[in-house]
Amino acid sequence: MDMDVTKLTEKWALAAGPENHIVVTSRVRLARNLAMAPFPPRAEKEGLRRVAEAVDTLIGKHPELRGFMRVDVGALSPLERAFLKEGYIISPEMELGGEHRVLYLDQLRHCVIMINEEDHLRMYCLRAGLQTDPSLEEISRIDGIFGRALNYAFSDKYGYLTTCPSNVGTGMRASVMLHLPGLAMTRQVEEALKAAPPSGLTVRGYYGENSEFLGDFYQISNEVTLGRTEGEIVTVLQGMIRQVIERETAARKHLFQRKQTYVEDVIWRAYGALTHARIMNSTEACKLLSPMRLGIERGYFSTLSHHELSQLIVAVQPAHIQLSAGSQTGAEERDVARAQFLRSKFSRLDANN
Amino acid sequence: MDMDVTKLTEKWALAAGPENHIVVTSRVRLARNLAMAPFPPRAEKEGLRRVAEAVDTLIGKHPELRGFMRVDVGALSPLERAFLKEGYIISPEMELGGEHRVLYLDQLRHCVIMINEEDHLRMYCLRAGLQTDPSLEEISRIDGIFGRALNYAFSDKYGYLTTCPSNVGTGMRASVMLHLPGLAMTRQVEEALKAAPPSGLTVRGYYGENSEFLGDFYQISNEVTLGRTEGEIVTVLQGMIRQVIERETAARKHLFQRKQTYVEDVIWRAYGALTHARIMNSTEACKLLSPMRLGIERGYFSTLSHHELSQLIVAVQPAHIQLSAGSQTGAEERDVARAQFLRSKFSRLDANN
Repeated sequence: MDMDVTKLTEKWALAAGPENHIVVTSRVRLARNLAMAPFPPRAEKEGLRRVAEAVDTLIGKHPELRGFMRVDVGALSPLERAFLKEGYIISPEMELGGEHRVLYLDQLRHCVIMINEEDHLRMYCLRAGLQTDPSLEEISRIDGIFGRALNYAFSDKYGYLTTCPSNVGTGMRASVMLHLPGLAMTRQVEEALKAAPPSGLTVRGYYGENSEFLGDFYQISNEVTLGRTEGEIVTVLQGMIRQVIERETAARKHLFQRKQTYVEDVIWRAYGALTHARIMNSTEACKLLSPMRLGIERGYFSTLSHHELSQLIVAVQPAHIQLSAGSQTGAEERDVARAQFLRSKFSRLDANN
Repeated sequence: MDMDVTKLTEKWALAAGPENHIVVTSRVRLARNLAMAPFPPRAEKEGLRRVAEAVDTLIGKHPELRGFMRVDVGALSPLERAFLKEGYIISPEMELGGEHRVLYLDQLRHCVIMINEEDHLRMYCLRAGLQTDPSLEEISRIDGIFGRALNYAFSDKYGYLTTCPSNVGTGMRASVMLHLPGLAMTRQVEEALKAAPPSGLTVRGYYGENSEFLGDFYQISNEVTLGRTEGEIVTVLQGMIRQVIERETAARKHLFQRKQTYVEDVIWRAYGALTHARIMNSTEACKLLSPMRLGIERGYFSTLSHHELSQLIVAVQPAHIQLSAGSQTGAEERDVARAQFLRSKFSRLDANN
């Protein structure tokens, strides 16, 4: 395909948002299936094709959807798919690729529709900072358009039907990505997040299920999709997020009031390594980027913003480095390109060491 | 006492010397005892007093020795004694302090005479870089003055008599301090130094017997003092040093030709930490200072010289930091003062990152 996938993440990545000294993104995702074909795991190619065609037709003619960009995921290279997964555009399932898997993105990169993922339709709205309500509102509007035009698989008893029973009901998963360097540095993350499971919430790492807690990023989302309305679920999630924001704020304050030299040491050593290393793997890069957040908050890096720092966690991932560096292939060359990328990013900073 | 011990190391510490991209210092030390009193371990206070008095008198009236500065080691605080040991001025034995232990230093800080150490007299000449011959010549001249004025304990059969049998004969120990970051980084130190023991030479760390190989510094000295002349011993030592210099030079060349990015990574990360850390213990400081040598050689730090770097290994030791920082007492405060000292030293560098 002719599209340059590296351009796809540009716009939303540049956005700032409320509370983004702690909250990176808010995302609300809906899982939907069409009654016209078996659900993807059981569908023949023909079924998948008909689903993709129906969605293509709708998007092509509907005035509110016409601006969406179409990406044939099946035609992408593994590297391009990895890039989109790292960039939080497609799911790990979608990264596997395959025929009749299609991705739509709106012009502002707020909304994404994945076709023939685990369900016929996975649509989400992603916004920078704490914006679960606007995200829910926006994705519901798009869901309404699809629901009115296409026949959803729906049960009066259970609600929306999905491939995995964990999504049945609302089909909604609202997730908020938090960056918690303060709680991590004071070893309070576990304590701060222990209220999540009893509230029907679950905690994951940056890249979803089974991913590590890369660079002190934590993703909190609803586990329960059945028996509550979308609004109720989002309210519970927001309540939890507000609590965690309070605790992270207190941890950062504690660090700077009681452990100032220690936390300055961590921040400036990270900065020293980011601006000087010649070889760096992605795990180390994430570890070093994390304390930079506290430096921004202290005004050490006057030209670096919270949301720019959040973007870097994605920008240092392997496929991003590989695609931006060009011809590199091996992990070693990538580690060199990553170090170079970080040096050039950070050397332009106005740092008050 | 009124003397500021921190001034004592200033002059020799600033000197440059031949081969000092690898050779830090050359030292020739002579052990002598006077026939007038039992050797120190067996001497009564009165005997030690008489020895000190005899030396005081000689130095006070001899035209070539009159310029020597007298330091009553017994009157120094433990911190001041630690400072002098770190600075390579007095031996670990002398650091223990005690009555009638006296130290004399010449104006240029090339020569030191310790009175009532393990032997009545321990005198050495220390020069920057590879200068074993001038050191031997200079200390022999001073030894001649003492030998003509005082009655040395001497046996026609064994030579100079000393407290420890390992010094009997010439009473001489010639040692050369080498900095081998290239061999350390390529894991070739052991191989390069394995010829030492068969040649009657021994390898020690920066602070002599049982000290660690701090910051890749290695001290090579003669084990044998009996049955060879001073000149023969020094010639063997010089031969070994020449070999090690060749190997270290080859290792550095190899690193920059074959492992350029790796070695640049190590150098610049060290520099990044030295210029940014807020807390640093002396072990880490030595580890980070070591690769800086290679950076100097590559012209990365145009305003830092080899001998200035060598001084820093001493300057970051605990008593040095404590005395220069003033009121600090605990290890934590010292680590903060050390980081501050290093930042101020290195931030003035003209680094070509």
